[in-house]
Amino acid sequence: MTQSETLDLSLQLLRQPSVTPVDHSCQEIMAERLKKIGFNIESMRFEDVDNLWARKGNTSPVFCFAGHTDVVPTGSPESWNSDPFAPEIRDGKLYGRGSADMKTALAAMVVASERFVQKYPDHKGSIAFLITSDEEGPSINGTVKVVEALEARNEKMTWCLVGEPSSTNRLGDIVKNGRRGSLNAVLTVKGKQGHVAYPHLAINPIHTASKAITELCETVWDNGNEYFPATSFQISNIQSGTGATNVVPGTMTVTFNFRYSTEVTADELKERVIELLDRHGVEYDIQWTLSGLPFLTPVGELVNAARTAIKNVTGTETELSTSGGTSDGRFIAPTGAQVLELGVLNATIHQVNEHVNVDDLEPLAEIYEQILVELLS
Amino acid sequence: MTQSETLDLSLQLLRQPSVTPVDHSCQEIMAERLKKIGFNIESMRFEDVDNLWARKGNTSPVFCFAGHTDVVPTGSPESWNSDPFAPEIRDGKLYGRGSADMKTALAAMVVASERFVQKYPDHKGSIAFLITSDEEGPSINGTVKVVEALEARNEKMTWCLVGEPSSTNRLGDIVKNGRRGSLNAVLTVKGKQGHVAYPHLAINPIHTASKAITELCETVWDNGNEYFPATSFQISNIQSGTGATNVVPGTMTVTFNFRYSTEVTADELKERVIELLDRHGVEYDIQWTLSGLPFLTPVGELVNAARTAIKNVTGTETELSTSGGTSDGRFIAPTGAQVLELGVLNATIHQVNEHVNVDDLEPLAEIYEQILVELLS
Repeated sequence: MTQSETLDLSLQLLRQPSVTPVDHSCQEIMAERLKKIGFNIESMRFEDVDNLWARKGNTSPVFCFAGHTDVVPTGSPESWNSDPFAPEIRDGKLYGRGSADMKTALAAMVVASERFVQKYPDHKGSIAFLITSDEEGPSINGTVKVVEALEARNEKMTWCLVGEPSSTNRLGDIVKNGRRGSLNAVLTVKGKQGHVAYPHLAINPIHTASKAITELCETVWDNGNEYFPATSFQISNIQSGTGATNVVPGTMTVTFNFRYSTEVTADELKERVIELLDRHGVEYDIQWTLSGLPFLTPVGELVNAARTAIKNVTGTETELSTSGGTSDGRFIAPTGAQVLELGVLNATIHQVNEHVNVDDLEPLAEIYEQILVELLS
Repeated sequence: MTQSETLDLSLQLLRQPSVTPVDHSCQEIMAERLKKIGFNIESMRFEDVDNLWARKGNTSPVFCFAGHTDVVPTGSPESWNSDPFAPEIRDGKLYGRGSADMKTALAAMVVASERFVQKYPDHKGSIAFLITSDEEGPSINGTVKVVEALEARNEKMTWCLVGEPSSTNRLGDIVKNGRRGSLNAVLTVKGKQGHVAYPHLAINPIHTASKAITELCETVWDNGNEYFPATSFQISNIQSGTGATNVVPGTMTVTFNFRYSTEVTADELKERVIELLDRHGVEYDIQWTLSGLPFLTPVGELVNAARTAIKNVTGTETELSTSGGTSDGRFIAPTGAQVLELGVLNATIHQVNEHVNVDDLEPLAEIYEQILVELLS
């Protein structure tokens, strides 16, 4: 065991150009290591997505590390200071696509498991890995399908630690114990096309919907709660018009998104939007897509184990948060598992020159190991 | 002189596929006829646009017929019941692109002039024709350039009759003695791009401009006057968004148009819009394009001559109007000429199966002739 063990495995994974949904042997690399320490390896391929379910032990409780080997595209490689798939250390930082999101966490999980198993060969319960190559893509053939397969055979997780980069300023300063729900809508406002010189013969959907849109933007949907910020409403796209300056358009399309707390439900939000549009006399069609239910793991064994481990390794008092985008935790939480996200700093994820502090890698492996100690030794 | 003289010349002109800005010999056909009755012919070509300035007589007052030989595109010819450039009479209607807008009026002007000159060879003043092939296009190298050339040599029109299809239900029921101004703007609202999950780090231009847009739509800009309807505001295009549902867009573009009366000026409208946007704290750029100043010919010699002629020929009491789109009258009125638009029914202009009542052609030529009699005999 050297200080560079987590770094070494990270480098190995970062050299694989595993742009979503391609795994590019990352799961094989991990599985080989896990097999050696007694894990049972199960590959689950759905369509073009590789998934790995690895488990050591047959008893409860089950502690599961979850994560993904796929990365977002690099953008133009020329805008990087070094090849995004030839990881490089400069000034104490490890550069490469996936370095923060989330191959270093995958390496730390494997190394932590190896060390824990060596120290506690007779640990209680089971350790598992749920790894997908479809977290950055449509998320249809990844974690959700594995969870379905496990549920079908009544295989349950007790605790699930997702290695998403949760930290903001210092390693472990933030862990995510839930995520807001995400509800999308495509609103089509109907009018009647015509000539701008004869507005009385046309119905301008931009005009007729304008007050309703203002009210949607200004509505306070809830005030959040102890764990969640207030529900937020954002219009992401608005489009109307033929391009000509003398034509009143016949329709307008508005795409919007709710990130919502556990204080409201998706159905309540839908009802309130519809009531508002109807009250303003808007003529419309609306299509809803629920892309994630909110979930929450209240303070309990998993949160406490993480807090203790972080405090012991880094001295940092961690903070609970439910902010940010969706993660695969949304698919695992509904099974009843406690779900927590804990990983490196997220400042550069999805950007060019994505990087992570080299000095955070071993501490992350130690935190993961100590959580195992807290829960399974 | 037979009942079919105006129809014959109309058919000749309608057979020319003179899609804007192509004249396709229409002006030559007209010029040949005018030359025979003593007109001096001047072709003025600017860039890809043919213009005709024809004048009989050297003295004042100058009565000018104005119009255009170009037509709007046909759209898919298959949607027509007959070839748009092979004019056909069915059920008393003459079908063809340009039949209403405005080749039958051009034919009526020529025939009226021929008859008038024959009856009044020693008429007072001058008769002129200002014909362009760029009224349906950008209107850059058409009437506006001819007017500039005439102004440069101090050649003035006293009265100008534009043959645009002004009638609504019956020939001559409406004449246009002015047009509203047309002011366009492209408003770019500035925000800050970001992720919908982190709205506090982004500034959504759709949200920040929403109240201002509502107020723009609801503002009463004026109440019009005796000649003009109230100024109207219409948004023709609105666009914001990257297409992705999880991105808060960085900018929004809004294109709008004022059709304005003589109760406000373009500068006043600009000032009021800017005051409104500033008051709502919107960050923006705005680009203005004045596409036509309003103009008005109050009741006087020309309006009275037209009223009398219409009443005599058709029995109809004509009504003055300033509604509808822009016309080339906007370029002629600033020279000080009295400008009036009078032509056939406009119900089918710019549409497939554009047509005109055959029975309206001779009466239109008679009305034009009687106006000449009223003013120049």
